[in-house]
Amino acid sequence: MSVLKKTDEFREKTVKTQPVFEGKIISLQVDTVQLPGGGTATREIVRHPGAAAVLALIDGNMLVVEQYRKPMEKFQIEIPAGKLDAGEDPMSAAARELEEETGYRAGKLRPISAFYTSPGFADEKLYLYMAEDLERGESRPDEDEFLEVQAISFEQAQQYIREERISDAKTILAVYAWHIYRLTGQIQA
Amino acid sequence: MSVLKKTDEFREKTVKTQPVFEGKIISLQVDTVQLPGGGTATREIVRHPGAAAVLALIDGNMLVVEQYRKPMEKFQIEIPAGKLDAGEDPMSAAARELEEETGYRAGKLRPISAFYTSPGFADEKLYLYMAEDLERGESRPDEDEFLEVQAISFEQAQQYIREERISDAKTILAVYAWHIYRLTGQIQA
Repeated sequence: MSVLKKTDEFREKTVKTQPVFEGKIISLQVDTVQLPGGGTATREIVRHPGAAAVLALIDGNMLVVEQYRKPMEKFQIEIPAGKLDAGEDPMSAAARELEEETGYRAGKLRPISAFYTSPGFADEKLYLYMAEDLERGESRPDEDEFLEVQAISFEQAQQYIREERISDAKTILAVYAWHIYRLTGQIQA
Repeated sequence: MSVLKKTDEFREKTVKTQPVFEGKIISLQVDTVQLPGGGTATREIVRHPGAAAVLALIDGNMLVVEQYRKPMEKFQIEIPAGKLDAGEDPMSAAARELEEETGYRAGKLRPISAFYTSPGFADEKLYLYMAEDLERGESRPDEDEFLEVQAISFEQAQQYIREERISDAKTILAVYAWHIYRLTGQIQA
């Protein structure tokens, strides 16, 4: 099979940018691009400031929060996470969100991975960390956040995935990373 | 810690829906919701038809495609994937996208996981499958898709993650699932 090529020929050059929406969390624009083969196409692009999330382990259990997710109109069990504040370092954001959402402070934070959540239409990048040596801090969720915190076992996490009570990319990825960590002692690819 | 509760009290009731944008791939609306504690908040919600993606293994290697991703303005190495057509079954979409993007037909497709990519602002759900017993079909990418196909080893995939040439949630999740499969023989949580 052919070797992967990253040639300028395949880059999509912006011909026009149409701003559509500027919100609190996201903005939306439609770009018209020049295609490699000639002709043009449009690309719908959501801009997002990025986010940080934490696989936080305490006594062999994982901290999760349950909250209502409006886009799906259902309750979801997820690892603690939140968007980056302007200019905020992802690791600081991870520490901040962990404490805000669960009331725990991390003695140690190590990067697991960073990934784009929806590369087809959004630039959101999520930074995932493992937190260990947790200590009680003070919990103070955002004003419009209503959360329930729990520490669940690995088997419980797998069960929640099967039941689709855990069903978001970052949390499933965190559980897979935890699985690999349990099997190999390694937290990175 | 408290037991997780899913009470109606914590549901966010829609007070108003403001349609903002209707595109080819996504649409955007802003909902005003009633908060559990009283008062209201807005939720920016991207609607997406959902997508299917494939961890396709051939002779112990994984099929990947490299393409230009406009939201990040960079080339990305990803597993074959694409959005669901209207009313399309996710597994059929996975088989279709695999053949369109790589030219391979899967003798066997098994579900690995399904997950929401960005539960905070989008309803996109991605269905991930493992494809085995691959046979050459015919490749016919979409008109505005320009792809390079390659089969890479597990070690190469890990290297690409470290180099951030692989840096999207579904592909990293697929590599983690592949890792667990290699260690345990299991493909599901």
